[in-house]
Amino acid sequence: MNVPHLTTATTGPLLALERQFLQQQVKIETWLREKWQNLAAPFYCSVDLRNAGFKVAPVDTNLFPAGFNNLNSDFMPLCIQAVQATMAELYPGIKQILLVPENHTRNQFYLENLAALQEILVKAGFATRVGSLLPDLTAPSELALPSGRQLLLEPLVREGDRVSVADFSPCLLLLNNDLSGGIPEILTNLQQAIVPAPHLGWFKRLKSEHFSHYQTVSTEFAEALGLDPWLINPIFRNCGEMDFLKQHGLEGLQDKVTDLLASIRGKYREYKIEQKPFVMVKADAGTYGMAVMMVQDAKELAELNRKQRTHMAASKNSQSVNKVIIQEGVYTFETWGEAEAAAEPVVYMLGKHVVGGFYRVHSRRGINENLNAPGMQFEPLAFAESCNNPDYGKCDCCANRFYIYGVVARLALLAAAYEFKTLGESNP
Amino acid sequence: MNVPHLTTATTGPLLALERQFLQQQVKIETWLREKWQNLAAPFYCSVDLRNAGFKVAPVDTNLFPAGFNNLNSDFMPLCIQAVQATMAELYPGIKQILLVPENHTRNQFYLENLAALQEILVKAGFATRVGSLLPDLTAPSELALPSGRQLLLEPLVREGDRVSVADFSPCLLLLNNDLSGGIPEILTNLQQAIVPAPHLGWFKRLKSEHFSHYQTVSTEFAEALGLDPWLINPIFRNCGEMDFLKQHGLEGLQDKVTDLLASIRGKYREYKIEQKPFVMVKADAGTYGMAVMMVQDAKELAELNRKQRTHMAASKNSQSVNKVIIQEGVYTFETWGEAEAAAEPVVYMLGKHVVGGFYRVHSRRGINENLNAPGMQFEPLAFAESCNNPDYGKCDCCANRFYIYGVVARLALLAAAYEFKTLGESNP
Repeated sequence: MNVPHLTTATTGPLLALERQFLQQQVKIETWLREKWQNLAAPFYCSVDLRNAGFKVAPVDTNLFPAGFNNLNSDFMPLCIQAVQATMAELYPGIKQILLVPENHTRNQFYLENLAALQEILVKAGFATRVGSLLPDLTAPSELALPSGRQLLLEPLVREGDRVSVADFSPCLLLLNNDLSGGIPEILTNLQQAIVPAPHLGWFKRLKSEHFSHYQTVSTEFAEALGLDPWLINPIFRNCGEMDFLKQHGLEGLQDKVTDLLASIRGKYREYKIEQKPFVMVKADAGTYGMAVMMVQDAKELAELNRKQRTHMAASKNSQSVNKVIIQEGVYTFETWGEAEAAAEPVVYMLGKHVVGGFYRVHSRRGINENLNAPGMQFEPLAFAESCNNPDYGKCDCCANRFYIYGVVARLALLAAAYEFKTLGESNP
Repeated sequence: MNVPHLTTATTGPLLALERQFLQQQVKIETWLREKWQNLAAPFYCSVDLRNAGFKVAPVDTNLFPAGFNNLNSDFMPLCIQAVQATMAELYPGIKQILLVPENHTRNQFYLENLAALQEILVKAGFATRVGSLLPDLTAPSELALPSGRQLLLEPLVREGDRVSVADFSPCLLLLNNDLSGGIPEILTNLQQAIVPAPHLGWFKRLKSEHFSHYQTVSTEFAEALGLDPWLINPIFRNCGEMDFLKQHGLEGLQDKVTDLLASIRGKYREYKIEQKPFVMVKADAGTYGMAVMMVQDAKELAELNRKQRTHMAASKNSQSVNKVIIQEGVYTFETWGEAEAAAEPVVYMLGKHVVGGFYRVHSRRGINENLNAPGMQFEPLAFAESCNNPDYGKCDCCANRFYIYGVVARLALLAAAYEFKTLGESNP
């Protein structure tokens, strides 16, 4: 079976969760459908999950997802259909799309992602080209990728309030660039639609904002289903501003870590879980798993050496003062192969449809470590089955596990949609 | 390769057609998308096609499709997603669906179809039960099917202007019954929505109406693409009323057959096709391939014996007077296996999405015979790949052939949507 093994003695609660999800599938889908009736889904989204056996929770929601090349090619038809349905619903009348990527020209994995995304959009029936923000790209550049795909990067040109590449004037710009550095001048005040809206870029977005929406959504969902919300929700605390280098705000952080660890310990006791609770300390703004630290005891924060403090202070734009959140750490108890490498699922959505996912398999990381860190090496393992076709007859089969992942990921998607709405209201 | 072999010397035009479809894929999808912008698709539909190597054309469009059990189970996720997208678009707010089937209680294939359809609807998140019109069904009847599926048939009960089964009061009735015998009393003047609208039943629908819309749609499409419309359109003539038993109207029919054969001969000459042209004589109203006859020469119609005339006169409700249409016969040049059995593709759609298809493989029928006749035995051969994911790099591969089938089937779907609209305007 092309699916990681769940190595845990505490699968009892998860199997109970699986059973409840399957028994209430119609209710779950109805609940989600009703939420989407008056709410626009993001065009695309990927959600990093952790499966601890006793709980399944999202740990990161990416509104500018890369990694489409890691999906199972058997589900290409599902991606094509999802784009067609989503475009008809959200952006009728659109014909030409310009994909605006990150400036990673040497990252072959990222370029394969772009080529895969372009293939999906073209097969869905949209003329799609790639307009690069690279300052030194002055002519079109054709890249041959390891998969055999071709990718044409073209320089983005602005004329008046429109951007274009060569003879191609798009109706819609699709950002695959998380705008960590802010909105580039060339993309401001455009007549063309930009998706997702640039003010959702990481230069502005806060993790605490997202997880506070997720907490509301997952609690409401759990209540509707008669579940303990904790089984799908990582508890978190907002810690305000910190300066790790100057050690400002450390005491307040320690207090909150102690408090959060106590809450987790309470839940562990309730479910008879013997593992040691831990929390993740993260920069509230920022991506790429930068400035993330695992803590099992608040004392560790007082004992950081200079190197560790510099690491925590450095986020993508080298700001030393950061807003910080602390989030319940969720063990990953899925392992792959004889080496028992830790595996973390990532679920992909196009519009409100789950179109697949893959595991990040990492042999050199522990089960309580962040698997999405800078420079991290992982092996992608595509989901063997889709996330929308559970098998009622079986228990603990991969189709059912993927169904749960798809549901939890859609709750994070819903939280992102509320986040969009709130941010949209403050950035009309 | 799990796909029939195309046994014909005249694949030249088809490969040219395939190339044109692939090269213009974005244009094709854009054209279709624009058509659907102001037009509601039928909830579901299946289209029988014939592939003659030199042309691909629809020969029957079924608005109450059975056969969902014959689709490739790998594409179940595509069906589920298509139902979700279609319901959100056409029938938001619906929670409970009652499937109203044909009264075929001994046809295991049909019952498997119902169970497959119910599974798709339930997995898409709709509570779905089956309400039977069988007059002698007074209590719920649980059937165990050969596939291992269970099917519960429940008697339909009417109270005031609503129908229900037991404790289940549906918001929507989904007809899987073609209403050849007219609209049953129990389904008239209901408060609940009925899909497809009952006035689209075969008691009222005319093939000539559908194919005249198809002619308009396919001609417009072909012009947009720079194709000869004949390559995707079977020519037909409307022949008015006939009485085969009394031999009324036979002469007029012969004239029209001679005229239609001459038109086909002209096209065969143009494309250097050496086969003998033929036409199909069909009842304009009616389903199940009843009263269908293959004719290569108008004289054959004057020489019918009593048995043949009785056959032509008998349609589902034993009406002896029929409106008749004659349609260009399209050879099927796809054959399967060493026995070279004739194979005819059937394409399935949910909303405007093509979700798969299968071949009817029939070893005892000729390449110019109707493969969908009463009592007919066929082996279903599920399409090995989806119809929306062509392979640009190859020519004459099954993914590309299925893409063409999906496009032609969607043109027939579009014709059906116009037919709905026209009938809806006359039955508000």
